[in-house]
Amino acid sequence: MNYANGMESTLHAFLARVEATLEEALPSEGRTDGPSAVLDAAARHLAFPGGKRGRPLLTFHFGRLAGADEARLVQLAASAELVHTASLLHDDVVDDGTLRRGKPTANVVFGNVAAVLAGDLVLATALELLERHPPAVPALAVRTVAEMTRATIAEVRARGDAQLPLEAWHAIAVGKTGVLFALCGAGAALLVGDEAAAARWAEAGRHLGVLFQLADDLSDLTDGAGGKDRFADLKNRNPSHPMLAAFERSPSLQRAVRREWAKGTPDAATVARLGAEVLAAGGAEATLAAMRQAERSMRAALGADAARPGGLELVGFAEQLLARAEALASPTPEVPAAAAG
Amino acid sequence: MNYANGMESTLHAFLARVEATLEEALPSEGRTDGPSAVLDAAARHLAFPGGKRGRPLLTFHFGRLAGADEARLVQLAASAELVHTASLLHDDVVDDGTLRRGKPTANVVFGNVAAVLAGDLVLATALELLERHPPAVPALAVRTVAEMTRATIAEVRARGDAQLPLEAWHAIAVGKTGVLFALCGAGAALLVGDEAAAARWAEAGRHLGVLFQLADDLSDLTDGAGGKDRFADLKNRNPSHPMLAAFERSPSLQRAVRREWAKGTPDAATVARLGAEVLAAGGAEATLAAMRQAERSMRAALGADAARPGGLELVGFAEQLLARAEALASPTPEVPAAAAG
Repeated sequence: MNYANGMESTLHAFLARVEATLEEALPSEGRTDGPSAVLDAAARHLAFPGGKRGRPLLTFHFGRLAGADEARLVQLAASAELVHTASLLHDDVVDDGTLRRGKPTANVVFGNVAAVLAGDLVLATALELLERHPPAVPALAVRTVAEMTRATIAEVRARGDAQLPLEAWHAIAVGKTGVLFALCGAGAALLVGDEAAAARWAEAGRHLGVLFQLADDLSDLTDGAGGKDRFADLKNRNPSHPMLAAFERSPSLQRAVRREWAKGTPDAATVARLGAEVLAAGGAEATLAAMRQAERSMRAALGADAARPGGLELVGFAEQLLARAEALASPTPEVPAAAAG
Repeated sequence: MNYANGMESTLHAFLARVEATLEEALPSEGRTDGPSAVLDAAARHLAFPGGKRGRPLLTFHFGRLAGADEARLVQLAASAELVHTASLLHDDVVDDGTLRRGKPTANVVFGNVAAVLAGDLVLATALELLERHPPAVPALAVRTVAEMTRATIAEVRARGDAQLPLEAWHAIAVGKTGVLFALCGAGAALLVGDEAAAARWAEAGRHLGVLFQLADDLSDLTDGAGGKDRFADLKNRNPSHPMLAAFERSPSLQRAVRREWAKGTPDAATVARLGAEVLAAGGAEATLAAMRQAERSMRAALGADAARPGGLELVGFAEQLLARAEALASPTPEVPAAAAG
């Protein structure tokens, strides 16, 4: 994103305020024992250092479009970040995850018990941050949490399903990522009581969330060609967008993946061969096309706001995702000869 | 509780409306597969048939005191019941519970994954029910959930701790049970915008919750004398109120229990012997005394409301708990000769 200097320092100050709010909301207070020390530690584990603070960033840009009060906007941004953190804590219990953001997950370090309860506490903390907001904001946050939960179970049940319809993939992407991006946008609009903008920005947020998930799925096919983690979705039996799109073009590939997944975790050679076939069947191009469509839909939802300060940065964020994906995926990367054989 | 006929039918009608609200909030829609069927089933597992619907009952009585709108009150009652249900779903994952209310727990039937996510969904549903309430109501519900979560981790960490201070036991009882009873009372008051009543009824609810937990702990010592499940808290290394009170009177008993708990799960003979010693040291009487104190504190918090319709029934509920406990515990039950030796 391109910022004039003044703007950049404003964003920087905003994110620093979000960070301070997160610190205050999840206290450590130097406690090293006592009933809540483990819980606090588990809750903080994933929050500090966090990820890219993408949701606070989106909240900042939507808030600029809305002209929202900064103190409220900081709370909304911190709340969205904590809803995200809580969902990751429970996801890692659900998936039996071991590593996230380069360190052991909370369930590994503190156990499932602490991770479940830390997730509960972080979620309650997220909602507490919205206590003094217009009632429509916490109400939307609660609905968002319900939708995210439904999407998580849908994702768990989709594992190993090579016949997942693309529409079901889309619904999961909206629920896992889109609705929380939508909260960042609609929440900012509701802070200034603009329900029409809330509806449009929620839609923009959902499209941006889908774009984000498409980019994530695509990177599994294209990143670090030859690297160890390429094609992890095929290995882990996660039906990704490029796979499902490739299956529409090649029913025989779909049958092959179904057979392999029915047997359990495919070995490395099988994964490499199937991954090459997903690329050969045009999976990457189909996902790129879906990304372009999501970007257009997001612009359409933003309408005239796409050209205003805040909206420009949101569009810039989408363009950046798209440009990076296009650079990696097009032209189709060379398939290593060994893997293709 | 004694109701005139008219009142009883009103309570009956109220609870029927709560039941219908729960049915609507946790839909089954006859789905037998699809992404949300397992989640719905897990969420409904514990809710239908539920327990005694104690929280809706309390909400009804507080609501009568407040003169609250019945439609809102039904939502508050259903919400409190679902917060309770959600906490049980996660508690059973946390405790690795296998049986609740006479049937296998959701974690056993559907697995930990579904039980964690069902708890998340039920909690979000509980908060959604309060969407159109005055903002102070959902805000209080969110704080209540945070306090319940902290109490759960404190309880988990207290397991096996024979040196738990009675104050810590009290704080856990308030957090596990009292704050949700307090939500039933304060929520009803906030529905009519009466903040002073909300503070008093929250206090009454906390005392009633403590009374309820004291009765529960005491029943472990006195119920089904000779029955299999007597002294389960000693076996499961749960420091109960009568135990901790007995320890204050008999440091040698405390040392004996510490030694046994340090070794792991005590055998049946040891459990029976230690249970008899807790009774002999006056544990049951001390808990009864604490119950009488909690009942007085609850009355004091209610003040003049204790003599009004709604308040009368709340006091009646407390008296019933107390009378039942006194009947079982006083005079001290005969200790079987074999166990005492």
